[in-house]
Amino acid sequence: MTQTLDPSTATTETPDTAEPGPAERVDAWLAAFEAALRDGDGEAAAALFATECYWRDLISFTWNIKTVEGRDAVAGLVDATAATTAPSGFATTEPPEEADGVVTAWIGFETAAGRGNGLLRLKEEDGEDRAWTLLTALYELKGHEEPRGTHRPMGAEHGANKHRQTWKELRQEEAESLGSTTQPYVLVVGGGQGGIALGARLRQLGVPALVVDKHPRPGDQWRNRYKSLCLHDPVWYDHLPYLKFPDNWPVFAPKDKIGDWLEFYVRVMEVPYWSDTSVTSARWSEETGEWTVELERDGQPLTLRPTQLVFATGMSGKPRMPEVPGMDVFRGDVHHSSAHPGPDAYAGKKAVVIGSNNSAFDICGALWEHDADVTMVQRSSTHIVKSDSLMELGLGDLYSERALAAGVTTEKADLIFASLPYRILHTFQIPAYEAMAKKDKEFYDRLEASGFWHDWGDDGSGLFMKYLRRGSGYYIDVGSADLVANGDVKLAHGQIDHLTEDAVVLADGTELPADVVVFATGYNSMNGWVADLVDQETADRLGKCWGLGSETTKDPGPWEGEQRNMWKPTQVTNLWMHGGNLHQSRHYSLYLALQLKARYEGIDTPVYGLQEVHHTG
Amino acid sequence: MTQTLDPSTATTETPDTAEPGPAERVDAWLAAFEAALRDGDGEAAAALFATECYWRDLISFTWNIKTVEGRDAVAGLVDATAATTAPSGFATTEPPEEADGVVTAWIGFETAAGRGNGLLRLKEEDGEDRAWTLLTALYELKGHEEPRGTHRPMGAEHGANKHRQTWKELRQEEAESLGSTTQPYVLVVGGGQGGIALGARLRQLGVPALVVDKHPRPGDQWRNRYKSLCLHDPVWYDHLPYLKFPDNWPVFAPKDKIGDWLEFYVRVMEVPYWSDTSVTSARWSEETGEWTVELERDGQPLTLRPTQLVFATGMSGKPRMPEVPGMDVFRGDVHHSSAHPGPDAYAGKKAVVIGSNNSAFDICGALWEHDADVTMVQRSSTHIVKSDSLMELGLGDLYSERALAAGVTTEKADLIFASLPYRILHTFQIPAYEAMAKKDKEFYDRLEASGFWHDWGDDGSGLFMKYLRRGSGYYIDVGSADLVANGDVKLAHGQIDHLTEDAVVLADGTELPADVVVFATGYNSMNGWVADLVDQETADRLGKCWGLGSETTKDPGPWEGEQRNMWKPTQVTNLWMHGGNLHQSRHYSLYLALQLKARYEGIDTPVYGLQEVHHTG
Repeated sequence: MTQTLDPSTATTETPDTAEPGPAERVDAWLAAFEAALRDGDGEAAAALFATECYWRDLISFTWNIKTVEGRDAVAGLVDATAATTAPSGFATTEPPEEADGVVTAWIGFETAAGRGNGLLRLKEEDGEDRAWTLLTALYELKGHEEPRGTHRPMGAEHGANKHRQTWKELRQEEAESLGSTTQPYVLVVGGGQGGIALGARLRQLGVPALVVDKHPRPGDQWRNRYKSLCLHDPVWYDHLPYLKFPDNWPVFAPKDKIGDWLEFYVRVMEVPYWSDTSVTSARWSEETGEWTVELERDGQPLTLRPTQLVFATGMSGKPRMPEVPGMDVFRGDVHHSSAHPGPDAYAGKKAVVIGSNNSAFDICGALWEHDADVTMVQRSSTHIVKSDSLMELGLGDLYSERALAAGVTTEKADLIFASLPYRILHTFQIPAYEAMAKKDKEFYDRLEASGFWHDWGDDGSGLFMKYLRRGSGYYIDVGSADLVANGDVKLAHGQIDHLTEDAVVLADGTELPADVVVFATGYNSMNGWVADLVDQETADRLGKCWGLGSETTKDPGPWEGEQRNMWKPTQVTNLWMHGGNLHQSRHYSLYLALQLKARYEGIDTPVYGLQEVHHTG
Repeated sequence: MTQTLDPSTATTETPDTAEPGPAERVDAWLAAFEAALRDGDGEAAAALFATECYWRDLISFTWNIKTVEGRDAVAGLVDATAATTAPSGFATTEPPEEADGVVTAWIGFETAAGRGNGLLRLKEEDGEDRAWTLLTALYELKGHEEPRGTHRPMGAEHGANKHRQTWKELRQEEAESLGSTTQPYVLVVGGGQGGIALGARLRQLGVPALVVDKHPRPGDQWRNRYKSLCLHDPVWYDHLPYLKFPDNWPVFAPKDKIGDWLEFYVRVMEVPYWSDTSVTSARWSEETGEWTVELERDGQPLTLRPTQLVFATGMSGKPRMPEVPGMDVFRGDVHHSSAHPGPDAYAGKKAVVIGSNNSAFDICGALWEHDADVTMVQRSSTHIVKSDSLMELGLGDLYSERALAAGVTTEKADLIFASLPYRILHTFQIPAYEAMAKKDKEFYDRLEASGFWHDWGDDGSGLFMKYLRRGSGYYIDVGSADLVANGDVKLAHGQIDHLTEDAVVLADGTELPADVVVFATGYNSMNGWVADLVDQETADRLGKCWGLGSETTKDPGPWEGEQRNMWKPTQVTNLWMHGGNLHQSRHYSLYLALQLKARYEGIDTPVYGLQEVHHTG
């Protein structure tokens, strides 16, 4: 979801002059950087960075997800972390490339605890090569490498061993003991893509973990949504860890197909997973260093005592259902979009859909297709991009067949994406959306002529920044926007005042007759789950989740530099927030899993720059 | 399972002399070959082949799986097929390599019907470059390319369409109509790895097909085997089409884990699959051009009318259970290895296992591990290789992490493997087994000292040739051979004469006390299934399946050059045999699926060299 430096104009050739090539320049920089780190000399390290500079670290130096900005902050990070991190062995892992005055290099390095990779971008400043952006990311812990590839398990244990147990017997024994004679070190609450991806990684790392979910089967989180739902992100962006979708997988997978995939992923990855299980409360004991978690499994009460508690209850948190007067007198169906059953029952009926984002459009489109009379109520402006244009101009350089053909694997794409500092990410985004505005001008003209309130984000940076900042305010158009533009789906504006027996009444008195009202009104911050399951004090101490502090709509400052509380240590001991789309569930589950593994193994994990809380929800 | 020409010594460099390099030599050969084909000039084409030469075609010229040997046969193939095939566009797909006097080239080409790939090996003979081996293989039909990668389905159908059906609705509708209002074009009997891999390919190609299997769930074919079973082939050799095992998959997967994978695969590949379904009879009607197949599904009788009938009932065919006098008086348990429940019930009991191949060793080992008193009865000599040695010396060049690191993908490995002519395959195999004999000399010495009858195959060519020739006669040692060598598992020799109430009596009078007798006595030819479900006349007309006609033990001549009746047209109209290990199920399902697709689409498929039948079973 970003424009990157165009690799097609890049070159790895050394020019004919005696000037050092990109490889030499990067090698020299890395050597100087490593020396500064070895000396714990923050000032020397900072001098290697440009005046405008960003160092993003994913748990390799900071045991945190942290971006520092500017030389002083670089110096501070080095001074605080270099000694304990003991980084070494910085080297390029493939030939660096130069384009538009920026040398880009894939790098590898080690720390005392593990091995890392990253991406370095050098710019010339004052005649010297200086780091503009640096990404450092831990990918494995020494002595705890994942059993994959050449280190995969044997499966059949060779030799003859009295009373050996089979794989199936071991799995059964494990399942029977889990929660009774053995405790999970990590309890993951919520078994959607986030919980499942994390569960798979923890399994792979040998961390005793358990994922619990209220639904009868893994994948029901998707199956239970409105029936027309397909993924809005394309397949290349959506892979889970370890097992990629096959190349016959649809670009936009239907919800039930994703549901099936998740169910079998749980099985083949051997993720310990309890369906039909609800958490009713969780309480931390400083004394025992454990959570006491009360659950209901298949209706039976049960207590677990995990050391770490992960909320993977949906990045969007809890359905936001406004309190609207008259809901009790309304005679038709009324429900939140998350509970919308689909259009079948509403042919010939009058439907009013409150909201104008993804779910609202999907639901309006499906209702119209099934011959309902549909009105969308727009309460505030929405950003719309055409799915094709988003794929071509937004994602295509990183996540597409084109990207794969150019050698940009999912793993590389994730790191490139992670290497773009949040502070300036919008500047990479704006040109893509300007291009979309131009490409799809006819569509936008029609849409605005229909009276639809359309925006491109506060600073014109479009969809992905809205997602990162507020997690709402957009629709990826797969066809329904035309229905609004054409008037097939009627459009009303304003806030809901109340419901009558058979209508929605807006604040300006407009009355919209209705047999069914769908509140596609979004979700509250996910720390609402913490308030429910732990308590309000803990939720407040944790603070708001998601958002960057960009001081744009619904993302109040101050600037945080990273997504609040996601995938990293929080102000609440041994409580973690995990979630996001499939891309984030895939990529950031790695760092969350490694943080949990390190704690499980008793590896020292001094956290640098734990974020302060500025907003409670 | 073969030694190939060592690519590590290969070179693509053009020498300093004016001699043409490998690329020029291959290009020149391909141009001359294409010209001869264009002219339909068999003699000219044959002149481009060496005196000793082999051309293997996988349905691209012959609509058959066919190896022709020698120039005359090459000329015959060209004369008969060039005009209808209309081949063109022969070109290398990557730089050819030269090693040990052989130039090896990956090639691509087209025919009137489709696109092919292959592998060419040139040798110099009489100062000219001549083909020693040529593999030509169709991989797709023009106009019927698979929807994959850049052609993958969209999933979400963009736009707004009245009464659109969701993926789930379409799948349900399809499932409900299949077998009632719609008929499968192809009925695949048997839903193990063979039936499933073929079902996935047919699905992908848009051929209406149905896989039926008697077990309650896909994967039960594995789950129901003896509990200690793990795959004897390593993971790199075992991938199914389209979806590879993830890189954390065990080298030798336990049977229940493979069972889960197959079940998962059926679902995500959307293979139409009926569990709990048995075929009771099948009858071909020349008049209607259809099979009439009677089935029982969930106990209910049902008739299907497919055009094509595929037996994927297990390459090993039906369990071979000898008629032994006294079975009725024996008081203990007696069963075939395929029905062996595992060792748990037999601790402290006396077990006699008849046979000395894979299943016999696995079962003996598991019984010994569970404290049974075990005797193996060896009736004829067995070939044993240590699993590690087989992986290192037999498979490693093609199917291993090492091969992958060297760029030998599964797809390439399959083609390299397919390019080695069966006539000379043993010559590639013998050195690998000589190396194993040397490497594991201490083990073989001990084994033979124990009295075990050990062999290396009739010509010393080892395990894989035994597999191809007779499908039996070997054990891949994962530990149990030592139990025999050490005497932990007792060894007896000879044929079974009869059972008493509590013992097995051998022909020489030896009495082996027994609480349980396991007949690990192998399987009959798979055309026994045809006799059962169609009739004996049809089974006889079909003839023996499997084997090469090598005139070695259990593989009578005459020389066939290919595996009898497998994956190709047979003497019985619209009846096909599919099966083999996971490698064969993966690779040859492609050619069988394309043959079925071509017939479904009404593409002309003149079969060249349909094999005669020399043996009935």
